Amino acid sequence: MAREIRLNAFDMNCVGHLQQGMWRHPRDRSRDYTSLEHWAGLARTLERGLFDGVFLADVVGVYDVFRGSAAAAIAQAVQVPVNDPLLLVPGMAQVTEHLGFGVTCNLTYEPPYLFARRMSTLDHLTRGRIGWNIVTGYLDSAARAMGLERQPEHDRRYDIAEEYMDLVYRLWEGSWEDGAVLRDAASGRYADPARVHAVSHDGHWTCHGMHLCEPSPQRTPVLYQAGASTRGRQFAATHAECVFLNSQPKPLVKSLVADLRARAEAAGRDPRDVLVFLGVTVVLGDTDADAEARFAEYRQYASIDGALAHFSASVGIDLDEFDPDAPIRPAQTQSNQSNLEAITTRSETAWTVRGLTERMPLGSRNVPIVGGPARVADELQAWVEQCDVDGFNLSRVVVPESFADVVDLLVPELQARGVYKRAYAPGSLREKLFGRARLPATHPAARRRARR
Amino acid sequence: MAREIRLNAFDMNCVGHLQQGMWRHPRDRSRDYTSLEHWAGLARTLERGLFDGVFLADVVGVYDVFRGSAAAAIAQAVQVPVNDPLLLVPGMAQVTEHLGFGVTCNLTYEPPYLFARRMSTLDHLTRGRIGWNIVTGYLDSAARAMGLERQPEHDRRYDIAEEYMDLVYRLWEGSWEDGAVLRDAASGRYADPARVHAVSHDGHWTCHGMHLCEPSPQRTPVLYQAGASTRGRQFAATHAECVFLNSQPKPLVKSLVADLRARAEAAGRDPRDVLVFLGVTVVLGDTDADAEARFAEYRQYASIDGALAHFSASVGIDLDEFDPDAPIRPAQTQSNQSNLEAITTRSETAWTVRGLTERMPLGSRNVPIVGGPARVADELQAWVEQCDVDGFNLSRVVVPESFADVVDLLVPELQARGVYKRAYAPGSLREKLFGRARLPATHPAARRRARR
Repeated sequence: MAREIRLNAFDMNCVGHLQQGMWRHPRDRSRDYTSLEHWAGLARTLERGLFDGVFLADVVGVYDVFRGSAAAAIAQAVQVPVNDPLLLVPGMAQVTEHLGFGVTCNLTYEPPYLFARRMSTLDHLTRGRIGWNIVTGYLDSAARAMGLERQPEHDRRYDIAEEYMDLVYRLWEGSWEDGAVLRDAASGRYADPARVHAVSHDGHWTCHGMHLCEPSPQRTPVLYQAGASTRGRQFAATHAECVFLNSQPKPLVKSLVADLRARAEAAGRDPRDVLVFLGVTVVLGDTDADAEARFAEYRQYASIDGALAHFSASVGIDLDEFDPDAPIRPAQTQSNQSNLEAITTRSETAWTVRGLTERMPLGSRNVPIVGGPARVADELQAWVEQCDVDGFNLSRVVVPESFADVVDLLVPELQARGVYKRAYAPGSLREKLFGRARLPATHPAARRRARR
Repeated sequence: MAREIRLNAFDMNCVGHLQQGMWRHPRDRSRDYTSLEHWAGLARTLERGLFDGVFLADVVGVYDVFRGSAAAAIAQAVQVPVNDPLLLVPGMAQVTEHLGFGVTCNLTYEPPYLFARRMSTLDHLTRGRIGWNIVTGYLDSAARAMGLERQPEHDRRYDIAEEYMDLVYRLWEGSWEDGAVLRDAASGRYADPARVHAVSHDGHWTCHGMHLCEPSPQRTPVLYQAGASTRGRQFAATHAECVFLNSQPKPLVKSLVADLRARAEAAGRDPRDVLVFLGVTVVLGDTDADAEARFAEYRQYASIDGALAHFSASVGIDLDEFDPDAPIRPAQTQSNQSNLEAITTRSETAWTVRGLTERMPLGSRNVPIVGGPARVADELQAWVEQCDVDGFNLSRVVVPESFADVVDLLVPELQARGVYKRAYAPGSLREKLFGRARLPATHPAARRRARR
């Protein structure tokens, strides 16, 4: 049988996520992001389509590199305003039973003791459906808002991240032993104090105290990561259960996936314990022609300024400073070389701003897959077969129709091909993805379990 | 007409909130605190009873003063385990339309930039029903868990709190002008960058950046505070819209309320712009005899160890070290004198541990009002008339029946007396409580509004 394809929805608690300008489309409801009903509706749609989860991006700062200010981002609603993503989860969990939630939280700025409690709380409230997308941030605007002069240097961020992971593993896995919670009304003991342990850690963070939460279904949330740099891939190979890759040419994706699995194996893990999700955008229709008509309609609303504001911040270069036809020189970059390399290695010719904008038909550097169900399914299967990816993070173009189209048109096609589930597996998000409730012994979190 | 009485429910995202030991009662469901359905059910009950809000307590540390460890607190589930309170709000908001949410967050440990975003997000998602109970913490165990050697000294905490308030007011009130959000698809402008301003602050916290959220219905959440010390009351008189007082003898409550209103007036505010809620526990029945029978049944489950663990942490004195019949000397206290004073001034005779425990019939220092609807209503009205309080924070004994009894028995009695509303007022929490959407010009937050 052909290999199973997994689907996540990729969204963000804001107006303009990846496809900039689409909020102006007459049918688009992304401006309803402040409404619980908007998110409940999305969750119901995704669960109807048997999506594994919704993956919520986040960013703490603003995109102020393009033209030296945040003006374009504010005017085009490019990931600003942006509300807290964690607070969307309880409402979506309440109207669903199986859908998972992968939420981005920036460990550079979230005090670990309180963050560990938030995640445990969500794992309880969702009955084991929470995941955490581990990010360290890349914006100086975030650092300044959070009281730093600038963000820590790239590799230092990963050093801090390693320390953070170890600390939260100790809180999640080691503070309360299995069996510490008794709930024994007869003896009057809710928990056994001898089986609850304080964590003691001094470092970039310092923490001396027990985890405030009793063990949740998954304890450690399902761990997501998206680092593209060498250090980021090493971090992912060590910690991540699900890895998100941006869309790039197939040979590059293939080599990145192979590298990731090799690194996981070198770290003592089963390379299949890491699921790889490729970020893609699809524009669907009943037929290829319908889809192409819809694509033509959508692209009228794309905002190139919005796309360049986003892209400039991603690579740390003000693209407005370049002659549109002159090559963009990576030497100019202040930071995020890996992001720029990932883009520019798409082609053997030097990139220009004009060339870039021509590749942003929907206001994003993600060029969509456009077609009827068969064409899109063919393309997704080609990615899986040629690049060894496990599934896709589907971003929205016009909401809610982008996700509704996937559920109504693409999912039945994939099911007919035998590459998509017809029902959810039981249990927590980790059980659904990996068939086990807890992280395996090969994962660093397992080393932090309390032993009797 | 007699004066209107307002009701809040007082609860916490944990097993044992105030009445320790009650989780062992056969009908008690407090151990379901990890379930969304548990909280949704509570919210529906409270809205059926036209409660103004649910007030969610929180504590970041554990109670480790009694017998020098957290063992008693852990064994009796005395506010530990304790999950994050903010994450309960979206689920409760989803099943209600009017109920308000007053949530405790400790500003000593929450980075203000991210905290401001969380509150704005909740104000959006609840359509203007969020309130914040401002606390600065009082537990060294919390400080150690958060990387400090000990908590900042009492008055220093209030200095820090003043700075924090000013910073978050600037984010909530001043960063986005009224009218900054255009949502103008025709011109392609979601917001006007010229009307969005960065905050610039250097101090105990440093923040240079714009607020990440567009203006929410209330902007600044409804502000709650419960400080009992002189400094705490001055802070409340300056900032709070709702003040929570612990139950104490009527003459003391009367003088505290008068002092608070006088301080508010001296700060340039209308003394009626501060609503005072007294914390009380009621045990109801169809008749006085029924209520007394129920009280006798409840008290079998009280945990004196749990109550002493809580009380010892509150006053910073290990009550296990005292001869049960020897006077507790306030000179022994390390901290929280004001808490101990508030207790010991209940009586002219010196307190002993035995005397204290005799006043904890339900595992709490809150002695309940026990009676049928008429007796309880008489007592509440006496508090309002004699002490000038505006309403009550009703704590739970056995859940869900404690709140269901209030809704089914007490609320109709109060309505029949003409002292309780028969329908919610329209609008946001602030509109319901004060008849206005925004804080008045006399409030310090108003000074931080952007002016054109």
